[in-house]
Amino acid sequence: MSQTRTEISSLGEFGLIQRINKGYKTTRPDSITGIGDDAAVIDLGDEFGLLTTDMLLEGVHFDLSFFPLKHLGYKAIAINVSDIAAMNGRPQQVTVGIALSNRFSVEAVDEFYEGVKLACKDFNVDLVGGDTTSSRSGLIVSVSVFGKVAKDKITYRHGAKAGDLLCVTGDLGGAYLGLQLLEREKQVYLANPNMQPELEGKDYVIQRQLRPEARMDVVYEIEEAGVLPTAMIDLSDGLASDLLHICSQSGVGAVVFEDKLPIDDQSFLAATELKLSPITAALNGGEDYELLFTVPQTAYDLIKNNPKISFVGYITDTPNEVLLHTNGDNRIPITAQGWQQ
Amino acid sequence: MSQTRTEISSLGEFGLIQRINKGYKTTRPDSITGIGDDAAVIDLGDEFGLLTTDMLLEGVHFDLSFFPLKHLGYKAIAINVSDIAAMNGRPQQVTVGIALSNRFSVEAVDEFYEGVKLACKDFNVDLVGGDTTSSRSGLIVSVSVFGKVAKDKITYRHGAKAGDLLCVTGDLGGAYLGLQLLEREKQVYLANPNMQPELEGKDYVIQRQLRPEARMDVVYEIEEAGVLPTAMIDLSDGLASDLLHICSQSGVGAVVFEDKLPIDDQSFLAATELKLSPITAALNGGEDYELLFTVPQTAYDLIKNNPKISFVGYITDTPNEVLLHTNGDNRIPITAQGWQQ
Repeated sequence: MSQTRTEISSLGEFGLIQRINKGYKTTRPDSITGIGDDAAVIDLGDEFGLLTTDMLLEGVHFDLSFFPLKHLGYKAIAINVSDIAAMNGRPQQVTVGIALSNRFSVEAVDEFYEGVKLACKDFNVDLVGGDTTSSRSGLIVSVSVFGKVAKDKITYRHGAKAGDLLCVTGDLGGAYLGLQLLEREKQVYLANPNMQPELEGKDYVIQRQLRPEARMDVVYEIEEAGVLPTAMIDLSDGLASDLLHICSQSGVGAVVFEDKLPIDDQSFLAATELKLSPITAALNGGEDYELLFTVPQTAYDLIKNNPKISFVGYITDTPNEVLLHTNGDNRIPITAQGWQQ
Repeated sequence: MSQTRTEISSLGEFGLIQRINKGYKTTRPDSITGIGDDAAVIDLGDEFGLLTTDMLLEGVHFDLSFFPLKHLGYKAIAINVSDIAAMNGRPQQVTVGIALSNRFSVEAVDEFYEGVKLACKDFNVDLVGGDTTSSRSGLIVSVSVFGKVAKDKITYRHGAKAGDLLCVTGDLGGAYLGLQLLEREKQVYLANPNMQPELEGKDYVIQRQLRPEARMDVVYEIEEAGVLPTAMIDLSDGLASDLLHICSQSGVGAVVFEDKLPIDDQSFLAATELKLSPITAALNGGEDYELLFTVPQTAYDLIKNNPKISFVGYITDTPNEVLLHTNGDNRIPITAQGWQQ
């Protein structure tokens, strides 16, 4: 052990990843990229291979008191497929590692894998391997996905150019607000187990948290429309944080219009009820697993009629200056949050 | 939740994997194999891609009171590379996911990645991605490796044929005995912190536990010798369990000669000191990460002079009958152990 002790919290997740990666260089000619995009890129000759991995831990990423195991299995696959989508790739094979304490029964494992297999079917991927082990403390899930993308179709985070339009799929903030509602109901239940959960009319935001989808549908649709994004990332940490990744890696800035942010009616209602700002939820909520991408202005006419895509702003040539253009015509800097799970 | 509750322990790890896999069929033409070998096999056109994943959990797979973090980083890569070796493949890229509680400092993470990067260098693989997250309870490591193998060079578990010779690399039982010594010294230390650990002359078995190697060297050497194994597996669970995998998947049996089992002198000494049978350690110890493979008899002359390879028995045509031919000329059935971590 070294004698100095630096707390991980002083670096944050992104600072830690930068430190791990600092001074490290890949040495193989078939390693096209290392750490720093949604998925690693491997040269397969005619095509690129894509590899991505994510871990989900009980008590950190999910709470089984309100998270059904089947949904968890589905989500574990979907959020990894989402990373392949963000490279404009096609997912093919997944491996699933699970660690289980003896609190879990075989039937619980069955439920989890029911969700895994359903997601595999939905995203046309095969479950091809994994690892099963015991755990001292709850459930841990680790998923890796292998996919492919044509060499001239890959979308990195670093390709955004000044003047490009900024697009997001679906709507934002719902997954975060759904989680807040679930956690509130859990507290109510703990205080009084006879209370019924008040989740009527909130099914959409709850579903955004419990069963996110990877937007492979939009990946296929923009290809059919003849549009190739200049940069793309999936919204796991929230638009603010993920847009900052695109901007810093592309050496550009961006302006986001408050009134263009796509927010579902249920999200507005949930935010009001929770006394939270729907704009903050949309910018910083995370876990929506929508796609954020940039396209040249010439692409506008080709995708403007796709109801799944919103144009929320544009890219500027001012490096790292990411601004929110408010409804009151002010421009305020968007900053990333600190440590993200 | 289902109303029936079946304990996972009633199935064991292999039973659980069988249950997960039961009735599941891969649907993509590029998924050559699903669950059930050392690595998943993906059709890349001219070659096969290989994908494997493994999780290591503090308190289950390693004890940081005697396991240096640098060694842990090395081992996490080596044991995954070993799965690629077992398919006769070449490892290329790795992803590393870690979950850390706030007990760990940035310097501890540095040490871990020092070992990861050293292993990457030793095995000519690149660290290309990963995931960093917080944990409520200790350190969790998840590694995935992507590799490749020529289509006519892949070695599955299921190719062993009656009359084939059974080979193992290196020596057996050391990793298990090393662990027993480390655990004994930990108990001694806990009882009396002034005691010095008695590990002199035990460096080899300790190293077998703390820093196993993937036998890529032997993979290259047998190829140079012009030998293609008919079946291969890496010894993670112990010769007994892993040979039973080869036999059941190949529909064959095997005879193993007690006096041919390669056991290092230090392992004999450690076994004596610990009052354990060195043969049991060799058969059931696990974690040696040597290769167990079968070759046609015609291969004997081509590799008999390789000091890294021992001929320990042969394959028979009696399905699943795996026998130990003892020094007293008895033949006793070899059975797998139950739940393996």
